[in-house]
Amino acid sequence: MSDVDSSGRAAARKNLQAPRAKASIDVATIASISIPFLLVIAAIILGGSPDAFIDIKSIFIVIGGTFGVVMACFSLRDISTAGKVVVQAVFHTARDSSAAAVHALQIAEISRYQGVLALQQYLPGLASTGMFYRGISIAIDGTPGEKIERTMQRELQASAQRNTRTVSVLRKAAEIAPAMGLIGTLVGLVQMLGNLEDPSTIGPSMAVALLTTFYSAILSNMVFTPLASKLEQNSTEETLINTLYVMAASSIGRQENPRRLEMLLNTVLPPDHRIDYFG
Amino acid sequence: MSDVDSSGRAAARKNLQAPRAKASIDVATIASISIPFLLVIAAIILGGSPDAFIDIKSIFIVIGGTFGVVMACFSLRDISTAGKVVVQAVFHTARDSSAAAVHALQIAEISRYQGVLALQQYLPGLASTGMFYRGISIAIDGTPGEKIERTMQRELQASAQRNTRTVSVLRKAAEIAPAMGLIGTLVGLVQMLGNLEDPSTIGPSMAVALLTTFYSAILSNMVFTPLASKLEQNSTEETLINTLYVMAASSIGRQENPRRLEMLLNTVLPPDHRIDYFG
Amino acid sequence: MSDVDSSGRAAARKNLQAPRAKASIDVATIASISIPFLLVIAAIILGGSPDAFIDIKSIFIVIGGTFGVVMACFSLRDISTAGKVVVQAVFHTARDSSAAAVHALQIAEISRYQGVLALQQYLPGLASTGMFYRGISIAIDGTPGEKIERTMQRELQASAQRNTRTVSVLRKAAEIAPAMGLIGTLVGLVQMLGNLEDPSTIGPSMAVALLTTFYSAILSNMVFTPLASKLEQNSTEETLINTLYVMAASSIGRQENPRRLEMLLNTVLPPDHRIDYFG
Amino acid sequence: MSDVDSSGRAAARKNLQAPRAKASIDVATIASISIPFLLVIAAIILGGSPDAFIDIKSIFIVIGGTFGVVMACFSLRDISTAGKVVVQAVFHTARDSSAAAVHALQIAEISRYQGVLALQQYLPGLASTGMFYRGISIAIDGTPGEKIERTMQRELQASAQRNTRTVSVLRKAAEIAPAMGLIGTLVGLVQMLGNLEDPSTIGPSMAVALLTTFYSAILSNMVFTPLASKLEQNSTEETLINTLYVMAASSIGRQENPRRLEMLLNTVLPPDHRIDYFG
Amino acid sequence: MSDVDSSGRAAARKNLQAPRAKASIDVATIASISIPFLLVIAAIILGGSPDAFIDIKSIFIVIGGTFGVVMACFSLRDISTAGKVVVQAVFHTARDSSAAAVHALQIAEISRYQGVLALQQYLPGLASTGMFYRGISIAIDGTPGEKIERTMQRELQASAQRNTRTVSVLRKAAEIAPAMGLIGTLVGLVQMLGNLEDPSTIGPSMAVALLTTFYSAILSNMVFTPLASKLEQNSTEETLINTLYVMAASSIGRQENPRRLEMLLNTVLPPDHRIDYFG
Repeated sequence: MSDVDSSGRAAARKNLQAPRAKASIDVATIASISIPFLLVIAAIILGGSPDAFIDIKSIFIVIGGTFGVVMACFSLRDISTAGKVVVQAVFHTARDSSAAAVHALQIAEISRYQGVLALQQYLPGLASTGMFYRGISIAIDGTPGEKIERTMQRELQASAQRNTRTVSVLRKAAEIAPAMGLIGTLVGLVQMLGNLEDPSTIGPSMAVALLTTFYSAILSNMVFTPLASKLEQNSTEETLINTLYVMAASSIGRQENPRRLEMLLNTVLPPDHRIDYFG
Repeated sequence: MSDVDSSGRAAARKNLQAPRAKASIDVATIASISIPFLLVIAAIILGGSPDAFIDIKSIFIVIGGTFGVVMACFSLRDISTAGKVVVQAVFHTARDSSAAAVHALQIAEISRYQGVLALQQYLPGLASTGMFYRGISIAIDGTPGEKIERTMQRELQASAQRNTRTVSVLRKAAEIAPAMGLIGTLVGLVQMLGNLEDPSTIGPSMAVALLTTFYSAILSNMVFTPLASKLEQNSTEETLINTLYVMAASSIGRQENPRRLEMLLNTVLPPDHRIDYFG
Repeated sequence: MSDVDSSGRAAARKNLQAPRAKASIDVATIASISIPFLLVIAAIILGGSPDAFIDIKSIFIVIGGTFGVVMACFSLRDISTAGKVVVQAVFHTARDSSAAAVHALQIAEISRYQGVLALQQYLPGLASTGMFYRGISIAIDGTPGEKIERTMQRELQASAQRNTRTVSVLRKAAEIAPAMGLIGTLVGLVQMLGNLEDPSTIGPSMAVALLTTFYSAILSNMVFTPLASKLEQNSTEETLINTLYVMAASSIGRQENPRRLEMLLNTVLPPDHRIDYFG
Repeated sequence: MSDVDSSGRAAARKNLQAPRAKASIDVATIASISIPFLLVIAAIILGGSPDAFIDIKSIFIVIGGTFGVVMACFSLRDISTAGKVVVQAVFHTARDSSAAAVHALQIAEISRYQGVLALQQYLPGLASTGMFYRGISIAIDGTPGEKIERTMQRELQASAQRNTRTVSVLRKAAEIAPAMGLIGTLVGLVQMLGNLEDPSTIGPSMAVALLTTFYSAILSNMVFTPLASKLEQNSTEETLINTLYVMAASSIGRQENPRRLEMLLNTVLPPDHRIDYFG
Repeated sequence: MSDVDSSGRAAARKNLQAPRAKASIDVATIASISIPFLLVIAAIILGGSPDAFIDIKSIFIVIGGTFGVVMACFSLRDISTAGKVVVQAVFHTARDSSAAAVHALQIAEISRYQGVLALQQYLPGLASTGMFYRGISIAIDGTPGEKIERTMQRELQASAQRNTRTVSVLRKAAEIAPAMGLIGTLVGLVQMLGNLEDPSTIGPSMAVALLTTFYSAILSNMVFTPLASKLEQNSTEETLINTLYVMAASSIGRQENPRRLEMLLNTVLPPDHRIDYFG
């Protein structure tokens, strides 16, 4: 059961804020993605010659090659959408679904007892809720509930589809990067083997040949894979919260009893996040 | 919602053109497939001895071997169909489904108000729409709607099946190429190891042995895999658009109200591409 | 739609032959399976010392080991059935389903208008159609349609099951062969490493050690995998054609109208192979 | 259709024996599992120094490690059950389902015409049929058909579950063994690399390091994988036959007409094993 | 059928204890996870220089890197929940479902004949049953059966979800660890290759480079994989037992006949664990 229960209703109504602003950056994700990088960099620096790990040509082959193949698999628009989605959806804190449900019920209660126009004054406080803000805005304009639901449902599905697409792009990149690393290493090996006269160059040449494999292993396992997993998780949670918002905004548009809305929201909330707002 | 809404109807009708000609080559796909090649070639040339990367025998083993095994898995007809489909469906720009739906509605509206024979004059402008052109042609001949639908549905399914088959052929090739590369490299290694007397030949021999692996990695990851992914995507979009065309042409054949057709098209269009032509 | 339409009915009836004899060997499959072998053999011969690629002990380990493990996974009977199925079903040309359907309709038409006993004279011409021949034979004996259907259905399912089993055997072999190659190579490596005193023997010993990997890669990728894929395809097509034959023979046994049979056959035929025999 | 048809009924009834005794050991499975071992051993002996292939430490790491990890994944009871199931179910000849069905019908016929108590004298001959023996025993005791069915069904499901569990254990072992081999080889490599002063020890040390990989490849591919596959197959067949026995014993308990039982058995038998006992 | 049958009812009721306390640590799991470790450690010590196997930097890269990537894929809360679940659910003995069902029936019987308040005195004996203890506690408070069921069902689902999540975390860690091992080894190899002047350092440097692969193979195959498998199994069993407890506690809350409860419990118990308490 949620922490936010009916006992906190009065207090909550005074201080009617969206649960946690979406604009806040998810420090935990950024920190945890950084940990492996810092460890690898530390190992490189402790090893003495960090220069040996930088080779522009290899970086170009791995990053450019992965980018090219992934773009050929999808399209430039998919790649640029994926870039935006990663920035927006991966690095932002997911809100708590119980808190979002309670917040939506509070808004619905106000609308029920003071009329939908009274929501005008709460609108600025909703700015950070994205879809809910837009849903309430058109509800204030007098749009009927069915139309609100249709419009928001469409936005919800489009957003879910964008996320699914981006996960596909990231998984494809995680799959292609090692192949580009292998190709780069083979180029380096063939060049080295054709030039064995001076044994002193064998070591460094082979080191350079291995760099593409190294870069691609990092890209695939320390960047693309965690981003795809994280996005998949955040997408599930965002979809849940936006589904709650669609339900709430169209319920407000239909001027239904908020108690009915609570029942409806609970059918969608996971068992341990169900709410008990009206007791 | 689509950009092409009812406000543009008058303008659109004057200039009644198919949304984007299918004949246009998809420069983006070709460019993105080229990027990894250019990067690898640059790395080879910068390395100094590009000749070391060309070995006719190795090219024959990888390409010929992959071709043979894939042909044995499928049939010569499948391979040649796959070749045609790749040229036609991969390197051509997919049309926009909203625009195609609006365009089909325009044609349906003309047919409704001016009679189906009036479409005769618009037929040349439809030449680039493939299935729609053929559907309208037989509608003008007075073929009843059911027969138009059956004929076009058959063509649609046959085309979808051809694409699915081609994707299988490409995926099989992407799977077999590395195996042929390994076989070629083993041949080279065994030959080199049986001939170790002159140490100066070890390097070059081994370089040549690695070339089949190199070619096969390129073929599999930079050619077959992106082509298969791209085709899968384009096929989904073409099928959607052709489904719209089947609906439109058979609706014209049945002389139905275009408003009913719009509702029908919207059931098939993805949420963010639905149209609102009649307001 | 099929090439064989009603306009060719008169001509076809005169020259009533089964579409393409099953006895004909599929040259294309044999040729395409040979291509990779020829290329590898050419590469070996061009390399100068073909003897280095033959090692009886390695051949025994890979082929015998794969055979033993696959036989332990299945049973001796499965393996011998698989052997027969490969010879029969992989290397024989699949018939065209439209032609088979038209041919079956011709026979049904004759039976309808001249009586089922009139089929006696056409029976020798059906010898190459396998199941259809057996179905018509028992129909001439006066077996009722239901019994014909039950008997043939049983044969059809047994044959499909045999093919599925054989595909499993071939896929298992394609999976086990590389493992046996690895085991053989490890045996060779351990023997070579225990005997490093004479450096001149290292190369040849290692070459021999690699041969099991080489043989197993060839067996798995150039033999078992294409045979399994080909069989899967041919099996699908044979099942389709035999389903048509079951329908036709039991329709003849029930003395139904051939027009009804045509409709029935079209429900089973893929969209681009449907027939239009009675116009 | 089965070889055992109604024409053999009289003969069969005189000599009323269970089809093929379950106690007989499946020589074919044992032989085929032995073939790869014999080939590998022959290759080792022909190579001259079989001692180089025995290393107690490596055997302990691979077998003990795989055993420990698999036991941690499941439980000691699962492992010991798996051991028993492998001995019982893998190395015993599966009976023929048609013969088992005919045999069950013979017993049902006797029960029908001579009363269920008459089965007492045939009971010793059923000893090798396992579940059928137990079912007939409780039927003779006058247990009603429903109770017989419930009891036997429970035993049947428990046995199927035991087999499924054992297949999981074997597949897990086949998956874990190579990992233990890799770990052992890494231990050997690190030890060898830390001790490069005396070049003459490098070869033998590396040979020993490779032995864990060698053992694990043999364990995984030549023992666990075929045992799992074989058990899966035998389990399917045993379940089929025991299902027939459950049907027969409960039909006898209900004193139904054996003709009804035959129809029932045919619904479960695969198409090419259906029986035609009463003609 | 269960060992605990109706004949033991009197005895059992006197000594009314929860079947096997959950607090007991599962020695078998700990022992079996330790076996592979002990074997590897023994091999290392027998090899002479155990110091060569300890490298703090490598430990940091593998453990820290895996931790970081997994945390980025999930969230800090998921990881800490996973830690708790592993301690609680993996290393504790699963109870026997039959015994738990019989125990629940005994409590239900007491409640039926002595009233629900009589359970107060048995409550301390239930402390180790977790969910059942909490269910009976609220039943004593007079909570109606439906409310008990809803509350416990919610707890049950939340617990199952926590376990599923933890299995995902462990499987992800088992997948990521080898990648971090490869990255660490590549860092070591590049450093070694750039520093080949002194041949005597090559061996030890390469040994160190291999350590990350070694650590990651151990972490993945000897820790994460068995923990995930074990948890999956224990979770299935705990869910079964807790489902029994939910049924029993809500049946007590509804004051139903315990015979009805027995039937209900048997629908959920696996065939070979069904109970026969009331005979």
